Parts: sequence; structure tokens; C-alpha cells
Amino acid sequence: MTFQTQLRIPGPTPLPERVLRSMNRPMIDHRGPEFAAILAEITAGARRVFKTKNDLLLLTSSGTGGLESAVANLVSPGDQVVAALCGNFGERFAALAAAYGADVVRLEFEWGQPVEPDDLRLILERHPNARVVLLTHNETSTGLTNPLRELARAARNADRLVVVDGVSSISSIEIETDAWGIDVAVSGSQKGWMAPPGLALVSVSERAWEQQVKARSPRFYFDWKEAKTWAEKGMTPFTPAVPVAFAMQEGLRMLEEEGLGKVYERHARLARATQAGLEALGFHLYAQDGYRSNTVTSALPPGGLDVSALRKLLDTKYGVVIAGGQGKMTGKMVRVGHLGAVAEGDVVQVIWAIEQALEELDIAPADGRGVAAVTASVQGVPAAAR
Amino acid sequence: MTFQTQLRIPGPTPLPERVLRSMNRPMIDHRGPEFAAILAEITAGARRVFKTKNDLLLLTSSGTGGLESAVANLVSPGDQVVAALCGNFGERFAALAAAYGADVVRLEFEWGQPVEPDDLRLILERHPNARVVLLTHNETSTGLTNPLRELARAARNADRLVVVDGVSSISSIEIETDAWGIDVAVSGSQKGWMAPPGLALVSVSERAWEQQVKARSPRFYFDWKEAKTWAEKGMTPFTPAVPVAFAMQEGLRMLEEEGLGKVYERHARLARATQAGLEALGFHLYAQDGYRSNTVTSALPPGGLDVSALRKLLDTKYGVVIAGGQGKMTGKMVRVGHLGAVAEGDVVQVIWAIEQALEELDIAPADGRGVAAVTASVQGVPAAAR
Repeated sequence: MTFQTQLRIPGPTPLPERVLRSMNRPMIDHRGPEFAAILAEITAGARRVFKTKNDLLLLTSSGTGGLESAVANLVSPGDQVVAALCGNFGERFAALAAAYGADVVRLEFEWGQPVEPDDLRLILERHPNARVVLLTHNETSTGLTNPLRELARAARNADRLVVVDGVSSISSIEIETDAWGIDVAVSGSQKGWMAPPGLALVSVSERAWEQQVKARSPRFYFDWKEAKTWAEKGMTPFTPAVPVAFAMQEGLRMLEEEGLGKVYERHARLARATQAGLEALGFHLYAQDGYRSNTVTSALPPGGLDVSALRKLLDTKYGVVIAGGQGKMTGKMVRVGHLGAVAEGDVVQVIWAIEQALEELDIAPADGRGVAAVTASVQGVPAAAR
Repeated sequence: MTFQTQLRIPGPTPLPERVLRSMNRPMIDHRGPEFAAILAEITAGARRVFKTKNDLLLLTSSGTGGLESAVANLVSPGDQVVAALCGNFGERFAALAAAYGADVVRLEFEWGQPVEPDDLRLILERHPNARVVLLTHNETSTGLTNPLRELARAARNADRLVVVDGVSSISSIEIETDAWGIDVAVSGSQKGWMAPPGLALVSVSERAWEQQVKARSPRFYFDWKEAKTWAEKGMTPFTPAVPVAFAMQEGLRMLEEEGLGKVYERHARLARATQAGLEALGFHLYAQDGYRSNTVTSALPPGGLDVSALRKLLDTKYGVVIAGGQGKMTGKMVRVGHLGAVAEGDVVQVIWAIEQALEELDIAPADGRGVAAVTASVQGVPAAAR
């Protein structure tokens, strides 16, 4: 049994006690000075995390709403758009552009493989009129982090607008919005920010603003100009998800106390430990080596294992909640989230529970090799010496 | 001084202790059984409040996002749409339709006056191709409740789709979505529902679904079909504002414990008391008699009173936060919210504070007439006998 759920999906992520308490506060006027101060602190803090001097806008929506804002503000019906994709969230971004009438040029890679910068260069050469390039930083569905710096460089060298889905990466995985030439980056409060879902963060470059003025898609709720105009008055155009703003403020303080460099290192360490644990238990890591995500690990199950039976047992007996596959990988994959308020002991608990469950499901005896592999990884023992 | 802010704006509304505590809970999987149960309870409860058997969809956005969903799902570029308006939120609804390329026919009334059903009938006769009619139930900017039953009847008799902004009315002011022939009604969690902002509620009739299939505006995040498909699986298409869902669940339980009829009566009682108090203090009620809102009272200040000085003094010295005017009435009006978790004593405190502030601002001596008027109103003494 368990007294505290181990929420190990790739978002929403667990809320630290401090963040939970930050929401335990009376409601405030969203057009008053108290909210203005919170908005200013979130905006400034998020800018430091995004590594940008660009405008940073807050929208009350999921991350997908933030992505839709990018399409609605940059793309006109009939515009050619290049979507580089290698998983379900890349597909979603492409579908979003198509819903707005864009002529979507798909640069598609196998799930589990990264988008290749050279291929992006080539497709941009072949499509000189595609002004906007849609990239996914961390492909949550396959547990893969694309080589964003190189992809952004390829797109910027071809003088395109670089729009990045950073929903599940920003604040957990290194990104340099300005230095890498990213025009628009989007994240969501329920990921590494350690806050609940409800707010999307969107950074907008000067070049993106120039395009925004020209773009002719309908937009109102997601209109960036409105968001910017009201932000300058310390407000949002429409009533914001106030408790999530309280939580973002506290989560950002925690990120800065830990230090962004250490946050990145912790996520990398937890990813390596999770990978080691799952491999020791007979799982096959899904994403290509070298591109495995620091926020979510995807793995194919050992032969004979029913993924839904595993997830159910983990949940009911051990209080461990992990994700399954998405889209065409539904039921065929496990995905273990390790982003936000997660530490080494949490990985130990998850891998230990999976090991016990594998024995109960008659897949393999629980001989402690999972936890041993996690321990060795955390202690920095190279895999070869284990 | 004050220890507890009196948040008397027309939303976000104060959170009852029970609702606050309901959010003080670890994060959960938005695709797991726990969230599915919450979604089902909210949907069923909201249906009872809307008085509808139609689909009831939850979107993570402000109320305006819910209104945008109505436009995006029902209106195609170039469609003629009738917008009946008498204030800032009616203007917003019309602007939303215009942003989606609709040919908006404006049926406009003076601020403070209601929309006249006979005029709606006439304009619909003159515009037989306007399939969609946009109505505002409670015009928050002027503190006025439109005669929705009659307006909806006029539109339905002309075989139009009736779309209602019920953001600040539903759950506080009587509405009968199905009996009145309303095809789409929209509300927001931060109003009478006693929850924080972050969720919009949208009811969709069979006739609206028929139109939805034909409408050709871009939609993705706000696509109703996606919301319905996922709701049938106990989920939302995109990550929802989970803490607001916790709060909605608890707020709905409180509404049902009190009983919807009693909730309506309480709001009517508080409105009468607020009106009586403000009039006794020399304010001039702004909305036409007979149409004054039960959720927010608007009033013009007594001669010589600087509204922003009043609001500042109320906030800093008495912890009473009231709203000012919007749009063309900015700085010229006060608006006192009395919706959601508000009781008689709260009105007493607000009127008392305003009375003290008027003396401090050299407008009128504080002789207790404000509280006396509130008391008489609450006790049911007719104004003439006071």
C-alpha cells in the first residue's frame, strides 16, 4: 500500500508542499496591485529561465493553448509552414497549423528518432516561402529531446521564424531562447515549473511581432498584442487562473534557490538513473541513445509484459502512477516522468515498485537489480563497471 | 485596518474555506480514474445548475475563452451574426465574432438599459440569414440583467441559434437553459460557482451541434467535438486546470447543499441590500429599475466624489475591494460585486466602509444611514416605510 502517490507521469507534476501552501490563500483582485506584483515576478523569473529578453506572455490555458497562440498570431490561411516532427506532440503542432488553414510541409522522422538538422536545412531550401518552422524541443510521447540548438540554427540561417514547443522541457532542460535564435517558445505551468496546470508561457521575439502584425488568422483570447498591452498595465486581458499564478511564483522561487544549472543536472541525473533501472529490469529504452529526454523516459516492456496490467498494479498496490504510450504506441510502451519536484529517492521507489510488480506478473524475479542499477547510476558508477 | 479582504468585485469571487481546502491536495493524473470521477461530478452538477440535458463541456480558460469557443464552433467567416448588446461584455462578444470574420449586426442599447425583446424580434426579421444570436444574460459592466427568457424566446421563435454569455449569472441568477430554448450557454468558474478562475463551462444543444459540423472557422484548443469525445472517456483533450476542478467540485456541493432556489434568493436579497445601502449614501443606481443585477450593483457616485480616491481608501484602510467602471465608464462608476460566497454581513461591512470613507473624503457625514438602509432591506422593511 501507499500513503503518498508517486505521480510519475510527464506532467502534471507533483506539487512541492511550499507550492501547495502558496495556493492556500484568499482570492485576490486580478486587476489590483497584488496580482500585478505577482505577474511581474513570474514574468521576470520566467524570462531568466527561458534565457530571453523578449516579451514573455502568460495565457490561461494548457500548453496546447500556448502553441495555438503561436499559430493564430503568426500564420495566415494558405501560408506554407514547415513542421519537423518525430512523435505525437509534433503531430499535434502540425494538426494545429493545419486547423488554421496552413499548408503544412511535414519533415517526419521515425518515433524514437530525433529530427535531423541537415534534413531541416534541405527542406527549408526546397520551401523558400515557408516563413514559420514548428519545432518540438522535448517530444514527450517518445521521451526524446531534439537537438534544438542545431535545428534552430538551421532555421534561423535560412531566415525563418523559429517556433518551439518547449512545454515539457523549459525549466528542466537547457534552452537559450535568445542565444539559439528562437523567436517563439512555449511552456506550461504543470511541467518543470512545479505548479499545477492552467497557465501557458509564451516568449515572443521582435521578428515574431513583425510577423504577428501581418498574420491574418482569427484570434481574440490568444491574441498576443492584447496580452502584451495588458501586461504593461500589470494585468492579463482576461481573468487569469490566479491560484496557478500563486503557484508559479513559488515554484520559480524554488527553481532559483536551487539554481537553474543544478536543476538541469538533477534532471539529467534522474534520467540516467531511470534509464539504468528500467534497462536492468529488461525494458528496452525507446528513444535513440544520445537524445533521451531528461524529463521523461520511454521504454518498451520486456517480452510478455502487459503494459496496462503493469500500470494498474503499480497504481493500486504501490501508488506509483506512470504513463503509457500515446497515439500509435498506446498500450505498447511505458513512460516514466521525472520532471519538476522529483529526487533520487523517488526514482528508487518507482523502479523498486516496477521490479516487485514484474515478479507478481510472472515476468521476472525481484532480485534487487533495479534498485542496484539506480544506486550505481546515482553514485556515478559507469555501467560497464557495475 | 482589516485582517480579511472583502473582495467585492464581480469576480473572481471569495473562496469559501471548504473550497480553499479542497485545492490543498496532491496533484493527480488528469487521465486517471480520480480525475474522471471529478469531471463526471462537475459535469452532472453543472447540468443541474444550467438546467440542461445538453452536453456540458469544460474548457481550461477564462469565460471569454468559453465565448470564443461558441464563435469558433458556430460561425464561419462572412456569416451574419446578430449581437444584442448594452455594455462592455456585449461589446466584447461582438468583437469576438468580428475577429472571426463574422458580419456582425449590432442591436445596441444605452448602457444601463436592457436589450428589448421586441427590437430583437424586428432586427431578426430584417436579417433572416443571421443564424446565430449573441446575448448577454448579466451585463457585468453595467450591473444589469437582461430579460433572457424573452430574448431567447424571440430568437428561438425566429429559428435562430441562441448563444448566451452567462459568465456572471449562471449559478447565481435563474436560468433555464433547455426550457428557455438556449442552445449555447457559457459560464466561468470564478463567479457564482465559488471557485477560482481557470475553467469555462459551455452547454451545447443538439441544434448547436448541427451547426458546429458546418461551421468553418479554425478551431483546435476550443474545438467542442474534441472536448466531447474526450469527456466521454472521462478526460479533457488537453491538460485541465486540475486545482480549479477540485474547487468546482466542492463549490457545486455547497451550492447543492444550500439549494439553488435559496442561492438565487440570497443573491436577490444581497442585491436589494446593496442597492438600498448605496442609495442611502447618495449614489445613483445606474442600471434601469427592474433589470438590476443580483450579482453586481453599479452606481454613479454622489457629486464631488472621486471614484478612484474612494476605491483606494476602501482598499488600503478597510480592506474592501470594489470595482470601478469599464470602457467608457472607467473612473465614473462604482461596481460592487455580491456573488458567490457572500452573505448579509459582508454587505453591511462594505456599505459601512463606504460610509466612513465618504466622511473622510469630505462628501457626507457618516451618520449610520448606510447600514440602517441595509438592515431595513435585509429585514424586509419596504423602502417607503424606512
